[in-house]
Amino acid sequence: MDVAALTPAEARSRFREGLRAPTAGWCRGWTQANLLAVPRELAYDLLLFAQRNPVACPVLDVGDPGAVSTGLFGGDLRTDLPAYQVYERGRAVADVADARDVWREDLVAFLLGCSFTFEDALLRAGVPVRHIEAGTNVPMYLTSLPCRPAGSLSGPMVVSMRPVPASLVPAAVRVTARYPAVHGAPVHVGDPAEIGIADLGAPDFGDPVEVRAGEIPLFWGCGVTPQAAVMASGVPFAIGHLPGHMAITDARDDRFQLP
Amino acid sequence: MDVAALTPAEARSRFREGLRAPTAGWCRGWTQANLLAVPRELAYDLLLFAQRNPVACPVLDVGDPGAVSTGLFGGDLRTDLPAYQVYERGRAVADVADARDVWREDLVAFLLGCSFTFEDALLRAGVPVRHIEAGTNVPMYLTSLPCRPAGSLSGPMVVSMRPVPASLVPAAVRVTARYPAVHGAPVHVGDPAEIGIADLGAPDFGDPVEVRAGEIPLFWGCGVTPQAAVMASGVPFAIGHLPGHMAITDARDDRFQLP
Repeated sequence: MDVAALTPAEARSRFREGLRAPTAGWCRGWTQANLLAVPRELAYDLLLFAQRNPVACPVLDVGDPGAVSTGLFGGDLRTDLPAYQVYERGRAVADVADARDVWREDLVAFLLGCSFTFEDALLRAGVPVRHIEAGTNVPMYLTSLPCRPAGSLSGPMVVSMRPVPASLVPAAVRVTARYPAVHGAPVHVGDPAEIGIADLGAPDFGDPVEVRAGEIPLFWGCGVTPQAAVMASGVPFAIGHLPGHMAITDARDDRFQLP
Repeated sequence: MDVAALTPAEARSRFREGLRAPTAGWCRGWTQANLLAVPRELAYDLLLFAQRNPVACPVLDVGDPGAVSTGLFGGDLRTDLPAYQVYERGRAVADVADARDVWREDLVAFLLGCSFTFEDALLRAGVPVRHIEAGTNVPMYLTSLPCRPAGSLSGPMVVSMRPVPASLVPAAVRVTARYPAVHGAPVHVGDPAEIGIADLGAPDFGDPVEVRAGEIPLFWGCGVTPQAAVMASGVPFAIGHLPGHMAITDARDDRFQLP
Protein backbone atom coordinates (compact mmCIF):
# COMPACT_ATOMS: atom_id res chain seq x y z
CA MET A 1 0.00 0.00 0.00
CA ASP A 2 1.48 3.35 -1.06
CA VAL A 3 0.37 5.28 2.00
CA ALA A 4 1.69 8.58 0.59
CA ALA A 5 -0.79 8.38 -2.29
CA LEU A 6 -3.91 7.76 -0.21
CA THR A 7 -6.54 10.46 0.15
CA PRO A 8 -7.45 11.54 3.70
CA ALA A 9 -10.81 9.74 3.42
CA GLU A 10 -9.10 6.52 2.30
CA ALA A 11 -6.57 6.70 5.13
CA ARG A 12 -9.28 7.40 7.71
CA SER A 13 -11.31 4.44 6.52
CA ARG A 14 -8.25 2.17 7.02
CA PHE A 15 -7.87 3.44 10.57
CA ARG A 16 -11.60 3.10 11.22
CA GLU A 17 -11.30 -0.56 10.17
CA GLY A 18 -8.61 -1.05 12.79
CA LEU A 19 -5.24 -0.38 11.15
CA ARG A 20 -2.76 0.96 13.68
CA ALA A 21 0.29 2.84 12.33
CA PRO A 22 2.11 6.14 12.79
CA THR A 23 1.01 8.52 10.03
CA ALA A 24 4.36 10.09 9.05
CA GLY A 25 4.55 9.94 5.27
CA TRP A 26 0.83 9.24 4.82
CA CYS A 27 -1.35 11.26 2.42
CA ARG A 28 1.34 13.45 0.89
CA GLY A 29 0.24 17.08 0.64
CA TRP A 30 -2.51 16.87 3.27
CA THR A 31 -2.44 18.49 6.68
CA GLN A 32 -2.11 16.25 9.73
CA ALA A 33 -3.27 17.31 13.16
CA ASN A 34 -2.97 16.52 16.84
CA LEU A 35 -6.20 15.76 18.69
CA LEU A 36 -6.97 16.70 22.26
CA ALA A 37 -10.54 16.53 23.53
CA VAL A 38 -11.29 17.96 26.96
CA PRO A 39 -14.49 18.57 28.95
CA ARG A 40 -16.18 21.87 28.17
CA GLU A 41 -15.22 23.37 31.53
CA LEU A 42 -11.54 22.91 30.64
CA ALA A 43 -11.84 24.23 27.07
CA TYR A 44 -11.04 27.85 27.95
CA ASP A 45 -7.87 26.91 29.79
CA LEU A 46 -6.76 24.75 26.87
CA LEU A 47 -7.54 27.39 24.25
CA LEU A 48 -5.69 30.01 26.30
CA PHE A 49 -2.78 27.61 26.88
CA ALA A 50 -2.58 27.16 23.11
CA GLN A 51 -2.79 30.90 22.50
CA ARG A 52 0.04 31.48 24.97
CA ASN A 53 2.21 28.71 23.50
CA PRO A 54 1.56 29.06 19.78
CA VAL A 55 4.77 27.43 18.56
CA ALA A 56 4.03 24.12 20.28
CA CYS A 57 0.22 24.41 20.20
CA PRO A 58 -0.96 26.05 16.95
CA VAL A 59 -4.76 25.76 16.89
CA LEU A 60 -6.11 24.65 13.52
CA ASP A 61 -9.73 24.05 14.51
CA VAL A 62 -11.95 23.69 17.57
CA GLY A 63 -15.14 21.65 17.51
CA ASP A 64 -18.41 22.54 19.15
CA PRO A 65 -19.07 20.76 22.46
CA GLY A 66 -20.05 17.17 21.71
CA ALA A 67 -19.22 17.35 17.99
CA VAL A 68 -17.15 14.46 16.57
CA SER A 69 -16.11 16.21 13.37
CA THR A 70 -15.04 19.75 12.54
CA GLY A 71 -14.81 21.93 9.46
CA LEU A 72 -11.27 20.72 8.90
CA PHE A 73 -11.85 17.03 9.63
CA GLY A 74 -14.74 15.41 7.82
CA GLY A 75 -14.35 11.98 9.45
CA ASP A 76 -15.38 10.79 12.90
CA LEU A 77 -12.85 11.92 15.49
CA ARG A 78 -13.72 8.93 17.71
CA THR A 79 -12.79 6.26 15.16
CA ASP A 80 -10.77 7.71 12.29
CA LEU A 81 -7.38 8.11 13.96
CA PRO A 82 -5.08 5.07 14.24
CA ALA A 83 -4.99 5.09 18.04
CA TYR A 84 -6.03 7.12 21.07
CA GLN A 85 -4.66 7.82 24.51
CA VAL A 86 -7.19 8.17 27.31
CA TYR A 87 -6.27 10.24 30.37
CA GLU A 88 -7.79 10.19 33.85
CA ARG A 89 -6.53 12.44 36.64
CA GLY A 90 -3.49 13.21 34.50
CA ARG A 91 -2.52 9.60 33.92
CA ALA A 92 -2.60 7.73 30.62
CA VAL A 93 -4.98 4.93 31.57
CA ALA A 94 -5.77 3.33 28.20
CA ASP A 95 -4.58 3.18 24.62
CA VAL A 96 -7.50 2.35 22.35
CA ALA A 97 -8.12 1.95 18.62
CA ASP A 98 -11.72 3.16 18.89
CA ALA A 99 -12.70 5.93 21.29
CA ARG A 100 -16.49 5.59 21.00
CA ASP A 101 -16.84 3.79 24.32
CA VAL A 102 -14.95 6.47 26.22
CA TRP A 103 -16.11 9.60 24.35
CA ARG A 104 -18.34 11.96 26.29
CA GLU A 105 -21.03 14.40 25.25
CA ASP A 106 -19.30 17.33 26.96
CA LEU A 107 -15.98 16.96 25.13
CA VAL A 108 -14.58 19.78 23.02
CA ALA A 109 -12.16 18.55 20.36
CA PHE A 110 -9.08 20.63 19.54
CA LEU A 111 -7.07 20.03 16.37
CA LEU A 112 -3.53 21.37 16.59
CA GLY A 113 -0.91 21.59 13.85
CA CYS A 114 1.51 18.68 13.38
CA SER A 115 5.01 18.85 11.95
CA PHE A 116 4.31 15.83 9.71
CA THR A 117 2.57 18.45 7.57
CA PHE A 118 5.83 20.15 6.53
CA GLU A 119 7.77 16.94 5.92
CA ASP A 120 6.67 16.81 2.30
CA ALA A 121 8.10 20.33 1.84
CA LEU A 122 11.36 19.19 3.50
CA LEU A 123 11.62 16.23 1.11
CA ARG A 124 10.93 18.45 -1.91
CA ALA A 125 13.71 20.78 -0.71
CA GLY A 126 16.12 17.82 -0.62
CA VAL A 127 16.18 17.51 3.18
CA PRO A 128 16.04 13.82 4.15
CA VAL A 129 13.57 12.77 6.85
CA ARG A 130 15.09 9.84 8.71
CA HIS A 131 11.96 8.38 10.34
CA ILE A 132 10.15 8.32 6.98
CA GLU A 133 13.15 6.54 5.41
CA ALA A 134 13.07 4.06 8.30
CA GLY A 135 9.30 3.64 8.25
CA THR A 136 9.07 4.43 11.97
CA ASN A 137 7.44 7.06 14.17
CA VAL A 138 9.19 10.40 14.76
CA PRO A 139 11.09 10.62 18.08
CA MET A 140 9.53 13.04 20.57
CA TYR A 141 10.93 14.26 23.89
CA LEU A 142 9.81 16.08 27.02
CA THR A 143 12.10 19.10 27.50
CA SER A 144 13.12 21.46 30.27
CA LEU A 145 11.49 24.36 28.38
CA PRO A 146 8.45 25.47 30.40
CA CYS A 147 5.24 26.47 28.66
CA ARG A 148 3.42 29.64 29.74
CA PRO A 149 0.70 28.38 32.11
CA ALA A 150 -2.98 29.14 31.52
CA GLY A 151 -5.51 28.62 34.27
CA SER A 152 -5.18 25.06 35.51
CA LEU A 153 -2.77 24.01 32.75
CA SER A 154 1.00 24.02 32.86
CA GLY A 155 3.78 21.72 31.70
CA PRO A 156 6.91 21.35 29.62
CA MET A 157 7.25 21.80 25.87
CA VAL A 158 7.43 18.56 23.90
CA VAL A 159 9.58 18.55 20.78
CA SER A 160 10.02 16.30 17.77
CA MET A 161 13.55 15.64 16.47
CA ARG A 162 14.91 15.17 12.97
CA PRO A 163 18.64 14.74 12.30
CA VAL A 164 19.73 16.93 9.35
CA PRO A 165 23.10 17.03 7.52
CA ALA A 166 24.89 20.21 8.63
CA SER A 167 24.89 21.71 5.14
CA LEU A 168 21.11 21.35 4.94
CA VAL A 169 20.28 22.96 8.31
CA PRO A 170 19.63 26.39 6.73
CA ALA A 171 17.28 24.82 4.18
CA ALA A 172 15.44 22.91 6.90
CA VAL A 173 14.98 26.10 8.94
CA ARG A 174 13.93 28.16 5.94
CA VAL A 175 11.41 25.63 4.64
CA THR A 176 9.74 24.94 7.97
CA ALA A 177 9.66 28.62 9.00
CA ARG A 178 7.10 29.06 6.23
CA TYR A 179 4.64 26.81 8.10
CA PRO A 180 4.01 28.54 11.44
CA ALA A 181 0.64 26.81 11.86
CA VAL A 182 2.35 23.43 11.97
CA HIS A 183 5.14 24.47 14.38
CA GLY A 184 7.27 26.56 12.00
CA ALA A 185 11.03 26.81 12.43
CA PRO A 186 12.94 24.64 14.92
CA VAL A 187 12.99 25.75 18.55
CA HIS A 188 16.47 24.32 19.12
CA VAL A 189 19.47 23.26 17.03
CA GLY A 190 22.17 20.94 18.33
CA ASP A 191 22.99 19.79 21.86
CA PRO A 192 19.93 18.02 23.29
CA ALA A 193 21.21 18.46 26.86
CA GLU A 194 20.65 22.22 26.56
CA ILE A 195 16.90 21.63 26.49
CA GLY A 196 16.94 18.90 29.10
CA ILE A 197 17.04 15.81 26.88
CA ALA A 198 19.40 13.27 28.44
CA ASP A 199 19.39 10.58 25.78
CA LEU A 200 18.35 11.00 22.14
CA GLY A 201 18.20 7.20 21.90
CA ALA A 202 15.37 7.03 24.44
CA PRO A 203 12.52 9.28 23.24
CA ASP A 204 9.56 9.83 25.56
CA PHE A 205 7.18 9.17 22.65
CA GLY A 206 7.67 7.57 19.23
CA ASP A 207 10.74 5.67 18.05
CA PRO A 208 14.47 6.50 18.18
CA VAL A 209 16.25 7.28 14.91
CA GLU A 210 19.92 7.13 13.96
CA VAL A 211 21.87 10.41 14.09
CA ARG A 212 24.77 9.97 11.67
CA ALA A 213 28.19 11.64 11.60
CA GLY A 214 27.89 15.15 10.19
CA GLU A 215 24.24 15.45 11.14
CA ILE A 216 22.80 17.94 13.62
CA PRO A 217 19.64 17.18 15.59
CA LEU A 218 16.93 19.78 14.96
CA PHE A 219 14.06 20.11 17.42
CA TRP A 220 10.61 21.41 16.55
CA GLY A 221 7.68 22.27 18.82
CA CYS A 222 5.32 19.28 19.02
CA GLY A 223 1.54 19.09 19.37
CA VAL A 224 1.89 16.42 22.06
CA THR A 225 2.73 19.39 24.34
CA PRO A 226 -0.88 19.84 25.54
CA GLN A 227 -1.02 16.11 26.38
CA ALA A 228 2.10 16.66 28.51
CA ALA A 229 0.21 19.53 30.18
CA VAL A 230 -2.77 17.22 30.78
CA MET A 231 -0.38 14.86 32.57
CA ALA A 232 1.59 17.53 34.44
CA SER A 233 -1.60 19.27 35.57
CA GLY A 234 -3.62 16.24 36.64
CA VAL A 235 -6.52 16.99 34.28
CA PRO A 236 -9.51 14.85 35.36
CA PHE A 237 -10.37 13.51 31.90
CA ALA A 238 -9.12 13.94 28.34
CA ILE A 239 -8.70 11.98 25.13
CA GLY A 240 -5.75 12.55 22.83
CA HIS A 241 -4.27 10.74 19.86
CA LEU A 242 -1.43 8.31 20.46
CA PRO A 243 1.68 10.40 19.65
CA GLY A 244 2.55 10.15 15.95
CA HIS A 245 -0.83 8.58 15.14
CA MET A 246 -2.48 11.68 13.81
CA ALA A 247 -5.80 13.02 12.53
CA ILE A 248 -5.44 13.36 8.75
CA THR A 249 -7.52 16.36 7.76
CA ASP A 250 -9.21 17.48 4.56
CA ALA A 251 -7.00 20.59 4.25
CA ARG A 252 -4.10 20.79 1.79
CA ASP A 253 -0.80 21.61 3.48
CA ASP A 254 -0.36 24.65 1.19
CA ARG A 255 -3.21 26.24 3.12
CA PHE A 256 -0.88 26.71 6.07
CA GLN A 257 2.13 27.97 4.14
CA LEU A 258 3.04 31.64 4.30
CA PRO A 259 2.93 33.51 0.99
CA MET B 1 3.34 67.80 21.40
CA ASP B 2 4.99 65.39 18.95
CA VAL B 3 2.78 62.41 19.71
CA ALA B 4 4.78 60.15 17.39
CA ALA B 5 7.86 60.56 19.57
CA LEU B 6 6.20 59.69 22.89
CA THR B 7 7.00 56.43 24.64
CA PRO B 8 4.06 54.16 25.48
CA ALA B 9 4.39 55.03 29.19
CA GLU B 10 4.33 58.76 28.40
CA ALA B 11 1.27 58.41 26.18
CA ARG B 12 -0.55 56.30 28.75
CA SER B 13 0.11 58.85 31.44
CA ARG B 14 -1.44 61.57 29.22
CA PHE B 15 -4.56 59.44 28.79
CA ARG B 16 -4.65 58.60 32.49
CA GLU B 17 -4.68 62.33 33.18
CA GLY B 18 -7.74 62.71 30.97
CA LEU B 19 -6.53 63.46 27.44
CA ARG B 20 -8.98 62.11 24.87
CA ALA B 21 -7.67 61.55 21.33
CA PRO B 22 -7.54 58.88 18.65
CA THR B 23 -4.11 57.22 18.78
CA ALA B 24 -3.30 56.93 15.05
CA GLY B 25 0.23 58.24 14.61
CA TRP B 26 1.05 58.07 18.32
CA CYS B 27 4.20 56.35 19.64
CA ARG B 28 5.82 55.49 16.33
CA GLY B 29 7.19 51.95 16.30
CA TRP B 30 5.07 50.67 19.17
CA THR B 31 2.25 48.16 18.90
CA GLN B 32 -1.29 49.40 19.48
CA ALA B 33 -4.10 47.11 20.55
CA ASN B 34 -7.85 46.81 20.78
CA LEU B 35 -9.29 46.12 24.22
CA LEU B 36 -12.31 44.00 24.96
CA ALA B 37 -12.99 42.86 28.51
CA VAL B 38 -15.77 40.34 29.09
CA PRO B 39 -17.00 38.37 32.11
CA ARG B 40 -15.12 35.13 32.69
CA GLU B 41 -18.09 33.02 31.60
CA LEU B 42 -17.94 34.64 28.15
CA ALA B 43 -14.17 34.41 27.77
CA TYR B 44 -14.18 31.04 26.03
CA ASP B 45 -16.68 32.17 23.42
CA LEU B 46 -14.63 35.31 22.76
CA LEU B 47 -11.33 33.45 22.53
CA LEU B 48 -12.89 30.91 20.17
CA PHE B 49 -14.52 33.69 18.14
CA ALA B 50 -11.08 35.28 17.78
CA GLN B 51 -9.49 31.95 16.85
CA ARG B 52 -12.14 31.42 14.17
CA ASN B 53 -11.80 34.96 12.79
CA PRO B 54 -8.07 35.57 13.01
CA VAL B 55 -7.85 38.28 10.34
CA ALA B 56 -10.22 40.61 12.16
CA CYS B 57 -9.47 39.38 15.70
CA PRO B 58 -5.78 38.55 16.09
CA VAL B 59 -5.19 37.83 19.79
CA LEU B 60 -2.05 39.51 21.13
CA ASP B 61 -2.58 38.82 24.82
CA VAL B 62 -5.23 37.68 27.30
CA GLY B 63 -5.21 38.72 30.93
CA ASP B 64 -6.02 36.57 33.91
CA PRO B 65 -9.53 37.08 35.34
CA GLY B 66 -9.58 40.36 37.27
CA ALA B 67 -6.13 41.49 36.11
CA VAL B 68 -5.88 45.10 34.86
CA SER B 69 -2.56 44.73 33.11
CA THR B 70 -1.01 42.01 30.98
CA GLY B 71 2.46 40.99 29.90
CA LEU B 72 2.13 43.17 26.83
CA PHE B 73 0.57 46.20 28.52
CA GLY B 74 2.31 47.51 31.62
CA GLY B 75 -0.22 50.26 32.36
CA ASP B 76 -3.64 50.05 33.97
CA LEU B 77 -6.21 48.88 31.43
CA ARG B 78 -8.97 50.76 33.30
CA THR B 79 -7.39 54.22 33.00
CA ASP B 80 -4.59 54.27 30.43
CA LEU B 81 -6.61 54.27 27.22
CA PRO B 82 -8.04 57.58 25.94
CA ALA B 83 -11.68 56.44 26.13
CA TYR B 84 -13.85 53.41 26.78
CA GLN B 85 -17.15 52.09 25.54
CA VAL B 86 -19.34 50.29 28.06
CA TYR B 87 -21.86 47.72 26.82
CA GLU B 88 -24.95 46.34 28.55
CA ARG B 89 -27.22 43.78 26.89
CA GLY B 90 -25.43 44.47 23.59
CA ARG B 91 -26.00 48.22 23.70
CA ALA B 92 -23.33 50.90 24.06
CA VAL B 93 -24.61 52.58 27.22
CA ALA B 94 -21.71 54.84 28.18
CA ASP B 95 -18.51 56.33 26.80
CA VAL B 96 -16.10 57.04 29.65
CA ALA B 97 -12.56 58.34 30.09
CA ASP B 98 -11.92 56.23 33.18
CA ALA B 99 -13.31 52.72 33.50
CA ARG B 100 -12.51 52.13 37.17
CA ASP B 101 -16.09 52.70 38.30
CA VAL B 102 -17.50 50.15 35.86
CA TRP B 103 -14.71 47.54 35.90
CA ARG B 104 -15.59 44.21 37.50
CA GLU B 105 -13.52 41.60 39.29
CA ASP B 106 -14.65 38.85 36.91
CA LEU B 107 -13.55 40.59 33.70
CA VAL B 108 -11.03 38.97 31.37
CA ALA B 109 -9.19 41.52 29.21
CA PHE B 110 -8.36 40.65 25.61
CA LEU B 111 -5.83 42.67 23.62
CA LEU B 112 -6.24 42.30 19.87
CA GLY B 113 -4.02 43.57 17.08
CA CYS B 114 -4.70 47.03 15.61
CA SER B 115 -3.84 48.21 12.13
CA PHE B 116 -2.41 51.47 13.50
CA THR B 117 0.61 49.25 14.20
CA PHE B 118 1.51 48.85 10.52
CA GLU B 119 0.95 52.47 9.56
CA ASP B 120 4.54 53.41 10.36
CA ALA B 121 5.66 50.66 7.95
CA LEU B 122 3.28 52.04 5.30
CA LEU B 123 4.73 55.54 5.72
CA ARG B 124 8.29 54.21 5.50
CA ALA B 125 7.33 52.44 2.25
CA GLY B 126 6.09 55.74 0.83
CA VAL B 127 2.39 54.92 1.17
CA PRO B 128 0.51 57.98 2.46
CA VAL B 129 -1.95 57.51 5.32
CA ARG B 130 -4.74 60.04 4.90
CA HIS B 131 -6.16 60.10 8.42
CA ILE B 132 -2.70 60.67 9.91
CA GLU B 133 -2.16 63.55 7.44
CA ALA B 134 -5.54 64.94 8.48
CA GLY B 135 -5.02 64.36 12.19
CA THR B 136 -8.30 62.47 12.47
CA ASN B 137 -9.45 58.98 13.42
CA VAL B 138 -9.40 56.20 10.81
CA PRO B 139 -12.81 55.49 9.22
CA MET B 140 -14.30 52.12 10.17
CA TYR B 141 -17.35 50.37 8.74
CA LEU B 142 -19.67 47.50 9.51
CA THR B 143 -19.68 45.16 6.49
CA SER B 144 -21.87 42.42 5.05
CA LEU B 145 -19.05 39.90 5.59
CA PRO B 146 -20.20 37.50 8.33
CA CYS B 147 -17.78 36.25 10.95
CA ARG B 148 -17.70 32.56 11.84
CA PRO B 149 -19.84 32.32 14.98
CA ALA B 150 -18.51 30.85 18.22
CA GLY B 151 -20.89 29.84 20.99
CA SER B 152 -23.02 32.85 21.84
CA LEU B 153 -21.04 35.27 19.64
CA SER B 154 -21.75 36.19 16.04
CA GLY B 155 -21.70 39.34 13.97
CA PRO B 156 -20.31 41.11 10.93
CA MET B 157 -16.67 41.90 10.19
CA VAL B 158 -15.69 45.51 10.82
CA VAL B 159 -13.05 47.02 8.53
CA SER B 160 -10.84 50.09 8.54
CA MET B 161 -10.32 51.99 5.28
CA ARG B 162 -7.35 53.82 3.84
CA PRO B 163 -7.42 55.37 0.35
CA VAL B 164 -4.23 54.53 -1.56
CA PRO B 165 -2.99 55.85 -4.93
CA ALA B 166 -3.48 53.05 -7.49
CA SER B 167 0.23 52.72 -8.20
CA LEU B 168 0.92 52.13 -4.51
CA VAL B 169 -1.72 49.45 -3.93
CA PRO B 170 0.77 46.59 -4.43
CA ALA B 171 3.17 48.18 -1.93
CA ALA B 172 0.36 48.66 0.59
CA VAL B 173 -0.66 44.99 0.25
CA ARG B 174 2.90 43.73 0.41
CA VAL B 175 3.88 45.79 3.45
CA THR B 176 0.78 45.00 5.51
CA ALA B 177 0.79 41.29 4.59
CA ARG B 178 3.94 41.04 6.69
CA TYR B 179 1.96 41.93 9.83
CA PRO B 180 -0.66 39.17 10.17
CA ALA B 181 -0.97 39.76 13.94
CA VAL B 182 -2.24 43.29 13.30
CA HIS B 183 -4.71 42.33 10.53
CA GLY B 184 -2.21 41.68 7.72
CA ALA B 185 -3.17 42.29 4.08
CA PRO B 186 -6.41 44.02 3.08
CA VAL B 187 -9.58 41.92 2.99
CA HIS B 188 -11.04 43.99 0.14
CA VAL B 189 -9.80 46.36 -2.57
CA GLY B 190 -12.07 48.79 -4.35
CA ASP B 191 -15.87 49.00 -4.53
CA PRO B 192 -17.22 49.42 -0.98
CA ALA B 193 -20.70 48.26 -2.05
CA GLU B 194 -19.34 44.75 -2.64
CA ILE B 195 -18.83 44.36 1.11
CA GLY B 196 -22.03 46.11 2.07
CA ILE B 197 -20.74 49.63 2.67
CA ALA B 198 -23.28 52.11 1.31
CA ASP B 199 -21.45 55.40 1.88
CA LEU B 200 -17.73 55.82 2.49
CA GLY B 201 -18.47 59.33 3.71
CA ALA B 202 -20.48 58.00 6.66
CA PRO B 203 -18.31 55.57 8.61
CA ASP B 204 -19.90 53.61 11.46
CA PHE B 205 -16.92 54.47 13.71
CA GLY B 206 -14.16 57.08 13.44
CA ASP B 207 -14.02 59.96 10.96
CA PRO B 208 -14.53 60.14 7.20
CA VAL B 209 -11.49 60.85 5.00
CA GLU B 210 -11.21 62.22 1.48
CA VAL B 211 -10.76 59.66 -1.34
CA ARG B 212 -9.03 61.53 -4.14
CA ALA B 213 -9.09 60.90 -7.90
CA GLY B 214 -6.77 58.03 -8.74
CA GLU B 215 -7.02 56.52 -5.29
CA ILE B 216 -8.49 53.12 -4.45
CA PRO B 217 -10.06 52.41 -1.06
CA LEU B 218 -8.35 49.50 0.70
CA PHE B 219 -10.15 47.74 3.54
CA TRP B 220 -8.42 45.90 6.38
CA GLY B 221 -9.92 43.70 9.08
CA CYS B 222 -10.52 45.76 12.23
CA GLY B 223 -10.31 44.86 15.90
CA VAL B 224 -13.61 46.60 16.57
CA THR B 225 -15.13 43.41 15.10
CA PRO B 226 -15.58 41.72 18.50
CA GLN B 227 -17.34 44.85 19.79
CA ALA B 228 -19.71 44.51 16.83
CA ALA B 229 -20.26 40.90 17.91
CA VAL B 230 -20.96 42.09 21.47
CA MET B 231 -23.67 44.33 20.03
CA ALA B 232 -25.05 41.82 17.52
CA SER B 233 -25.16 39.07 20.12
CA GLY B 234 -26.65 41.01 23.02
CA VAL B 235 -23.77 40.29 25.37
CA PRO B 236 -24.89 41.17 28.94
CA PHE B 237 -21.80 43.20 29.88
CA ALA B 238 -18.50 44.18 28.30
CA ILE B 239 -16.00 47.05 28.22
CA GLY B 240 -14.14 47.97 25.04
CA HIS B 241 -12.03 50.88 23.92
CA LEU B 242 -13.68 53.68 21.99
CA PRO B 243 -12.86 52.81 18.35
CA GLY B 244 -9.54 54.37 17.30
CA HIS B 245 -8.67 55.19 20.93
CA MET B 246 -6.32 52.29 21.50
CA ALA B 247 -4.23 50.60 24.16
CA ILE B 248 -0.60 51.49 23.43
CA THR B 249 1.46 48.48 24.45
CA ASP B 250 5.07 47.99 25.49
CA ALA B 251 5.82 45.80 22.44
CA ARG B 252 7.74 47.08 19.43
CA ASP B 253 5.82 46.68 16.17
CA ASP B 254 8.73 44.69 14.70
CA ARG B 255 7.79 41.91 17.08
CA PHE B 256 4.73 41.20 14.95
CA GLN B 257 6.43 41.40 11.57
CA LEU B 258 7.08 38.21 9.64
CA PRO B 259 10.76 37.44 8.93
